[in-house]
Amino acid sequence: MSFQALPGFRDFYPEEMALRRHVEAAWHAAAKAAGFEEVEGPPLESLELLKAKSGEAIVEELYAFTDKGGREVALRAELTPTVGRMIAARAAALRKPVKWYATPQLFRYQRQQRGRLREHIQWNVDIFGASEIGSDAELLAVALDALRRLGLTEKEVKVRVSHRGVMAERVRTRFGADAVESTLRLIDKGELTPAQAAELLVAFDVAAIPELDGLYAACEDLGVEGFLEFDPRIVRGLAYYTGLVWEIFDRGEKLRAVAGGGRYDMLIERLGGPQMPALGFGMGDVVLTELLRDTGKLPPGPPKIDVLVVPIGEEMLAPARQVVRRLRLAGERAEAPYSPMKVGKAFQLAESSGARRVVLVGPDEWRLGKVKVKDLRSREESVREVDKL
Amino acid sequence: MSFQALPGFRDFYPEEMALRRHVEAAWHAAAKAAGFEEVEGPPLESLELLKAKSGEAIVEELYAFTDKGGREVALRAELTPTVGRMIAARAAALRKPVKWYATPQLFRYQRQQRGRLREHIQWNVDIFGASEIGSDAELLAVALDALRRLGLTEKEVKVRVSHRGVMAERVRTRFGADAVESTLRLIDKGELTPAQAAELLVAFDVAAIPELDGLYAACEDLGVEGFLEFDPRIVRGLAYYTGLVWEIFDRGEKLRAVAGGGRYDMLIERLGGPQMPALGFGMGDVVLTELLRDTGKLPPGPPKIDVLVVPIGEEMLAPARQVVRRLRLAGERAEAPYSPMKVGKAFQLAESSGARRVVLVGPDEWRLGKVKVKDLRSREESVREVDKL
Repeated sequence: MSFQALPGFRDFYPEEMALRRHVEAAWHAAAKAAGFEEVEGPPLESLELLKAKSGEAIVEELYAFTDKGGREVALRAELTPTVGRMIAARAAALRKPVKWYATPQLFRYQRQQRGRLREHIQWNVDIFGASEIGSDAELLAVALDALRRLGLTEKEVKVRVSHRGVMAERVRTRFGADAVESTLRLIDKGELTPAQAAELLVAFDVAAIPELDGLYAACEDLGVEGFLEFDPRIVRGLAYYTGLVWEIFDRGEKLRAVAGGGRYDMLIERLGGPQMPALGFGMGDVVLTELLRDTGKLPPGPPKIDVLVVPIGEEMLAPARQVVRRLRLAGERAEAPYSPMKVGKAFQLAESSGARRVVLVGPDEWRLGKVKVKDLRSREESVREVDKL
Repeated sequence: MSFQALPGFRDFYPEEMALRRHVEAAWHAAAKAAGFEEVEGPPLESLELLKAKSGEAIVEELYAFTDKGGREVALRAELTPTVGRMIAARAAALRKPVKWYATPQLFRYQRQQRGRLREHIQWNVDIFGASEIGSDAELLAVALDALRRLGLTEKEVKVRVSHRGVMAERVRTRFGADAVESTLRLIDKGELTPAQAAELLVAFDVAAIPELDGLYAACEDLGVEGFLEFDPRIVRGLAYYTGLVWEIFDRGEKLRAVAGGGRYDMLIERLGGPQMPALGFGMGDVVLTELLRDTGKLPPGPPKIDVLVVPIGEEMLAPARQVVRRLRLAGERAEAPYSPMKVGKAFQLAESSGARRVVLVGPDEWRLGKVKVKDLRSREESVREVDKL
């Protein structure tokens, strides 16, 4: 009987895991450089919480079920409800602004199509308790800093920015309050009729967004204004956004959005907390990794070890282990085969492991407290005392 | 309306998350030092897979449900079924021995009692395709190396070791084949009658375990033999173990096991792969963190930032952002408040953030391309050119 992962779920073998960690390392570094603190919550939440944030419609897309205690629960599809709940619970005690980030795995039950996944890893970055334009700019700069660390610059990506609140007001004055939500959804999906588009997008006046000047100026301070492009089609699909919104795309717009975020000043109140301004973004690993691949920015796989220690003959197994122990204590990644290995095979293994050095433990040298060391880059060979490895 | 995490699930606020990362960092470092590669699988698996490894009884303890596609699925309670499935799928292509580790979150639905959790983070380390005693010793040494990195030594912890296969044979010859599984469970739970204990444990002869000498010798090479204690009560609760088994305990035996593992040579075959020797262990974050707390080994919280940049007055907000940008590019963790801040309050904030330096951006110095820098440890103050920060 043989088994597979569930459809839409990924197995991370060492190569895929190294790539995931490469991306996550850039996320951690960018967030920490800007003073964001890491948090995490449970992958499973009450259905009630998830609905409170996103409405009944979200249930269709969730891995939702009733647990053995009769609770309606679901695997999280976003982190924002969890983080909002955590903020609401300690709103009075936390020093504002709160700057948090996380790298959760998120889940969405959607009909399987074209290898579409049911999970992804998302970098989630939020600021709570800040209404200044500097916070909007910093959020954007953090997202772009992670991309910079991965090798992506203004040449590869851009930020399309607009204001959901202003667009909502524009829709209301032209088509009435009842049309707002449905029309914003059409804008988000790019499904406006030509007539609607002419009315809502074409004649859109940048000056209608008072925050935009300040955003550009603050982004200039932070060195990221060259990424920005005003685009009235950006409203974010999620109804909880209230202010400036943005999405990061590859310049060629071949892929879906790499990241998206904006301001959502009403959410914490809706989750049981006080009125508190808030903004945040999410950046998923799947589109980002595609973009890194398309632009040739994927790094080579990391070496598995620094040093391979080779026991020459059965009686050298114990000495080889002692050498391994010594190397590990000195901070090197080192391993020895569990059985004696022919030298030729050992060098093949060392090459494929990315090792920089091979240490040959043979009886003649060992008797003198020595081992043979070969540097795999310089090809230099030397006999060294074990104490001085 | 206010919301909480589901019972038995943890929210990781920054302080708890930093502690979790501290523990995980030791796990990553110990595994990588010994040449183990990181992997990860889906938190959700088919119920069939989980039952194939652990039998029908496991279903009672699982978060199991039927998904929208009619599949019986469950949140993983162990990583071994996933890793076994991944090995079985690529058994022919992978170079043996395969040395893998992971740090998954695992889930168990158990009746809520005394704050017992329904999830934990577990370090999972496995070797596939090695039957030599050196692999058993290395596995143990890796577990102990992580504890050493966290400050735990022979003074705080010990390894209780025995052999499930030998004990199973002993039970069979004394009480018959039908009694083996149920009796091993009683041993694991410490629920033998005095008569059974006399028969099975008291007269247990260490010499009955041929691997033990080799294990001690190899552990001596690796510097961890001082942790070992033979203890016939160790059989591991899980039926799939076949050989040497061990558990790590605090010396005082006040807590549950910190880690447990051993050899399970039949599992890969049962999961659809070839016959392949295998061994592994799991170390959870909950008991380990309790032990670190009890022994005073918890580290202080990490500083949030290195440098706080303070805009003196509204018109210094933009210059402060430019300084922040410069510092971040230079590799420092730096932030500026989004609004001007009084100097006294800024120093309080800097202290509580763990910052080493405060940079004051005031109009008089800024006009000259300079800022005031105060070192919070030495208390030294200086005026510095912005280019030379």
